[in-house]
Amino acid sequence: MSISSKPARGMRDFLAEDVLKRQYVIERIVQAYRSFGFQPLETPAIERLDVLTSKYGAEGDQLMFKILKRADKLEKADVNDIDSLSDLALHYDLTVPMARAYADNRNDLPRYYKRYQIQPVWRADRPQRGRFREFYQCDVDFVGTDSLVAEVEVISAMFSALERLSFTDVTVRLNDRRILQGLLRGAGVPADKHAETMAILDRFDKIGVEQVVVQLQSEGGLTQQSAQDLAALFDEHDLDPHAYLKEIGARLERGGQSTECVDALDALIRMIPPADGIHIAYDPGLVRGLSYYTGTIMEFSTSGFSGSIAGGGRYDGLVSSFLKEEVPAVGGSLGLERLLVMMDERNMFPDLHNRCDVMIARMDEEGLVENMALAAKVRATGRSCTVFPETRKMAQQLRYAEQINAQVVLIQGKRELESGTVVVRSMINRDQETVAIQEIAQYLDAL
Amino acid sequence: MSISSKPARGMRDFLAEDVLKRQYVIERIVQAYRSFGFQPLETPAIERLDVLTSKYGAEGDQLMFKILKRADKLEKADVNDIDSLSDLALHYDLTVPMARAYADNRNDLPRYYKRYQIQPVWRADRPQRGRFREFYQCDVDFVGTDSLVAEVEVISAMFSALERLSFTDVTVRLNDRRILQGLLRGAGVPADKHAETMAILDRFDKIGVEQVVVQLQSEGGLTQQSAQDLAALFDEHDLDPHAYLKEIGARLERGGQSTECVDALDALIRMIPPADGIHIAYDPGLVRGLSYYTGTIMEFSTSGFSGSIAGGGRYDGLVSSFLKEEVPAVGGSLGLERLLVMMDERNMFPDLHNRCDVMIARMDEEGLVENMALAAKVRATGRSCTVFPETRKMAQQLRYAEQINAQVVLIQGKRELESGTVVVRSMINRDQETVAIQEIAQYLDAL
Repeated sequence: MSISSKPARGMRDFLAEDVLKRQYVIERIVQAYRSFGFQPLETPAIERLDVLTSKYGAEGDQLMFKILKRADKLEKADVNDIDSLSDLALHYDLTVPMARAYADNRNDLPRYYKRYQIQPVWRADRPQRGRFREFYQCDVDFVGTDSLVAEVEVISAMFSALERLSFTDVTVRLNDRRILQGLLRGAGVPADKHAETMAILDRFDKIGVEQVVVQLQSEGGLTQQSAQDLAALFDEHDLDPHAYLKEIGARLERGGQSTECVDALDALIRMIPPADGIHIAYDPGLVRGLSYYTGTIMEFSTSGFSGSIAGGGRYDGLVSSFLKEEVPAVGGSLGLERLLVMMDERNMFPDLHNRCDVMIARMDEEGLVENMALAAKVRATGRSCTVFPETRKMAQQLRYAEQINAQVVLIQGKRELESGTVVVRSMINRDQETVAIQEIAQYLDAL
Repeated sequence: MSISSKPARGMRDFLAEDVLKRQYVIERIVQAYRSFGFQPLETPAIERLDVLTSKYGAEGDQLMFKILKRADKLEKADVNDIDSLSDLALHYDLTVPMARAYADNRNDLPRYYKRYQIQPVWRADRPQRGRFREFYQCDVDFVGTDSLVAEVEVISAMFSALERLSFTDVTVRLNDRRILQGLLRGAGVPADKHAETMAILDRFDKIGVEQVVVQLQSEGGLTQQSAQDLAALFDEHDLDPHAYLKEIGARLERGGQSTECVDALDALIRMIPPADGIHIAYDPGLVRGLSYYTGTIMEFSTSGFSGSIAGGGRYDGLVSSFLKEEVPAVGGSLGLERLLVMMDERNMFPDLHNRCDVMIARMDEEGLVENMALAAKVRATGRSCTVFPETRKMAQQLRYAEQINAQVVLIQGKRELESGTVVVRSMINRDQETVAIQEIAQYLDAL
């Protein structure tokens, strides 16, 4: 009985064309991030459980892939205590591992640490269309300052990556967790209900304003009036961000609250260099799922694709889980899988050279050493080249040349060996020509 | 209390310089593999346990990182049956996942599938110097033919990668599992003891000839004479491979065994194109740990480094675990971590541009928008550029410029803004010059 050849649930294999597309996108993102002075970091797939736990919120903790203890350790574990069976897990994002690695290497890193990191992450989510259990994140983070320059550089670097991929219509929605909290306080939500209430607001797009009002009352404990006031605020759209922030600031002021965070967001929006193809909006209803955000939060989208293509925010408390010190930080992450889906739909990829340029046919067992030497000659011209491995009918060999998208087939049988020539067959126009072997490089160059 | 910032046991973080070195090596290996017409494949880190189990031998099965079942599935598992707690594992090599993916995509793949794959693998080995629990393999495999051309192309592609990395002294030791088995049969080892006996022979380099003879008797059940005969054979070195194979062939013939596999290995050695820097040897004592090998086995080493830098072999039975059909295949794997260690020791890396080319100093809060615009101008020249995020003393800013290896610092304070100029300070010779802002690109190009 043979074993199923399918990948595990929610996982994917990437054949040549897919890999080349992924690399094309990743390369351009790296170029953009590096042009802003972000430097690369790689962290292991596996982290200790205590590093990852309770950084992402309750849902994140549940969706981690945990690793079974091994050998002695497993034998000593209490089988009735599920938590004791595991001490490691696969990383769920790249921000928490970066915060750990930053803390561990602080003395070797520059005063401000600008890093990018492009690696897979794993989440045991219910797989669905466009949602996988292994997927790549393309992170960029600016650690060590509470200056808004950090926000601007993170946003600009992500936009630059999208520009290099030819996205021409990007909207960045911004909010600040502290403004959200101010509005919740103003609506009479006690501090210990903030997380829950934000989770309700986060469902706005999915469940609609009426359900939000219902849930704010039933689960959030708001009065009908407060719930409606709050929901109405989040239902507005497409206002000029500065006018909108002024309105929100006035509301906070009326409630006797500080407007510092409103002013900061207003200043941030003014600092982002205006550019073709980028539109900056203030979205008071933007929540972002992860629990480690403390200030600015952001989400990128592009026309014609529902859902975000990137997100991020400021997380001034995360590094201090690993270091007895507050280290402010802000970062963002481009979602590789969504970019690929969009770029595929819109034919945004150039020719990615998914082929073996030259195939050498096999005519006789004896000619093999010469065939191999010819292959080396072809490769020295910078072309990729393969030697057909078996002696088969020419029709079969040519069919294989088509399968590997070869542009040219070289035939070097007994006759050619005797006369020091090679037959060059174009797979594009089927022409055949006999060429002296010492001229083969120039001939190929001239094709 | 803060959580430890160390990576998990046997795992590593790679800071900028390390990542750039790794990418440098990987890029050159990819270039080599692609020049031979191998195409890329990526498979998920996580595989179903049934895909991985009993492909690597008993040791491999034990060293797999298994993943704890999740939610309902975990609740339904029998806690007293350790095996029921896990249904997934991290891949232990890239060959088994490739065989699975090949079986799953066979109809979309060329008749002969030449693929490369460069990804991390995970083994819960005891960590020691130079040995990690997460490490990269750089695999190249030729699937679908039993022609020796496959062996030659795999060996040549791996050697080409080493050449591109400037390794100039590579030894490839070859053997054939079938020759080994013939020799064991000849020494009177029953077939069901072959795996065990090979494991003893595999320890030759570690425990020495005398211990091998002892163990062949105590564990392998050989007579003293047979054990000594067998061990003596493996103790010889540096013979001409053809003469050596002739001797082995004669020995097999005397025992009434076929010499077909000896002739095949002899032919293979004749087919490998001779090249500067590569030395081909026959090593009758070469065993290779993995249990899936069925024919040719190989190991690459280089002078001045004990231990192998690459290995591989033919595994004609593996794909048929996933497909009701025999599909012959041969492949090899370059060990990235060992290459990196050697290249570091021998200073084999060029300048990998681990720097941010230009830093823009921060003089005044007000000039920030102009500083950002200047940064965009610099990035448009192809240079990387960062804006110092806070207003601090110039000495502190210059110290940071040194930390990020900036070549140039640009200063654009109130005075410069008024006169439309920029002060350019070289971090190399400390020269300062005032340049008109519209000439900054040309000025940097001329530096």
